[in-house]
Amino acid sequence: MKIYDVEGFPNPARVRIALAEKGATDWVEFVPVDVMNGEHRSAEFKAKNPDAVVPCLELEDGSYIAQCNAITEYIDAEFDGPSLTGKTAKDRARIAMMNLRAENGLLNAVSAYFHHATPGLGPDLETDQCAEWGHKQKHVAARTMAYLDAVLADTAYLAGDEFSVADITAFAGLAFADFAKVEIPATLENLQAWRAKVAARPSIAA
Amino acid sequence: MKIYDVEGFPNPARVRIALAEKGATDWVEFVPVDVMNGEHRSAEFKAKNPDAVVPCLELEDGSYIAQCNAITEYIDAEFDGPSLTGKTAKDRARIAMMNLRAENGLLNAVSAYFHHATPGLGPDLETDQCAEWGHKQKHVAARTMAYLDAVLADTAYLAGDEFSVADITAFAGLAFADFAKVEIPATLENLQAWRAKVAARPSIAA
Ligand SMILES: N[C@@H](CCC(=O)N[C@@H](CS)C(=O)NCC(=O)O)C(=O)O
Ligand SMILES: N[C@@H](CCC(=O)N[C@@H](CS)C(=O)NCC(=O)O)C(=O)O
Repeated sequence: MKIYDVEGFPNPARVRIALAEKGATDWVEFVPVDVMNGEHRSAEFKAKNPDAVVPCLELEDGSYIAQCNAITEYIDAEFDGPSLTGKTAKDRARIAMMNLRAENGLLNAVSAYFHHATPGLGPDLETDQCAEWGHKQKHVAARTMAYLDAVLADTAYLAGDEFSVADITAFAGLAFADFAKVEIPATLENLQAWRAKVAARPSIAA
Repeated sequence: MKIYDVEGFPNPARVRIALAEKGATDWVEFVPVDVMNGEHRSAEFKAKNPDAVVPCLELEDGSYIAQCNAITEYIDAEFDGPSLTGKTAKDRARIAMMNLRAENGLLNAVSAYFHHATPGLGPDLETDQCAEWGHKQKHVAARTMAYLDAVLADTAYLAGDEFSVADITAFAGLAFADFAKVEIPATLENLQAWRAKVAARPSIAA
């Protein structure tokens, strides 16, 4: 299979970490997309992914799967290794819920701040900004960090005792926060300790 | 199990349709939440669902699952009946992707328009509006309707030959569009025909 993405970007990182956790990175051919020059908005790329974002997975049969949650779910089902999306119905639901909280409340909120309230990817690409919205979303990110910190007072990982896609999404969200200069308060000690622990995983540190 | 919700609201409708599709409605006790008077923002409700939205599922063990995607995934796994989230890894990924496109691009876009660019739930609840954002999201909804119409030129349902959660989400998005007075162009004939077909399902028409 192929993955169209940009190495180092936050959403692509979610898929790359998931692949590394499953030991499946070598099964994938990565195809770079020149996002900084707008390649993801070309007719050719939008035929693959009408959302006009990276990452995008191409399967052996030539069909495409976009959206990190769909891609990581596919990777988790296709490859052996520890489960990232849960095994029982209850675990799966709890992981999906926490993943969505990390995504909506942190990663997507930081992304909205970056794209709407800062120069973002630059004037050629950020042609539809709404600064007021971006600033509101920065507050959402701050609230979510405090919420995740409170969750981590009771559990080792965001959805319980085991590492999951929820942790991957939140970790990518914090990396994006650093990049976008959104403060991660040092007082959120559980969140900081969890972040250091996740950063040391071979899928990320290696 | 219990579901805290408001009958007739768009996100609760997603879960109620999923339950009806699985023939599982009678297994659930519905607990009304007085959203119009802000009950969902009370400390008591936020202890159940910190997202402060409905619906929220309470399991037999007293734990809570929020977010429609997590709740419908749980319902699909727990009850017999036709699969709503897919069986093979590939079907599941495709359904998840189309469900996210319907959610982000239609339901959530209409919701953003309603809550930010109209009086929404009224001045007591809509205390953090951003009209410019709401209007932008109305355009996103219009674009997504055109996209879904194009998809439905080739397939019977949004993720292929079978009805799935993607159809439920898009159907709820169109119902919300009517309520919020967002136009659904009559020229989108595939979308209109699909809507009539979905509306006739026993899970919805009954
Ligand atoms: N919800 C999408 C988000 C993808 C996304 O926003 N990707 C960014 C890179 S991290 C992108 O392609 N941005 C291009 C742009 O903003 O024009 C997913 O889960 O894949
Ligand atoms: N992403 C959430 C959305 C839930 C949602 O927005 N629910 C609405 C009712 S349809 C709500 O509770 N709104 C309360 C408010 O806006 O204050 C989900 O999937 O459950």
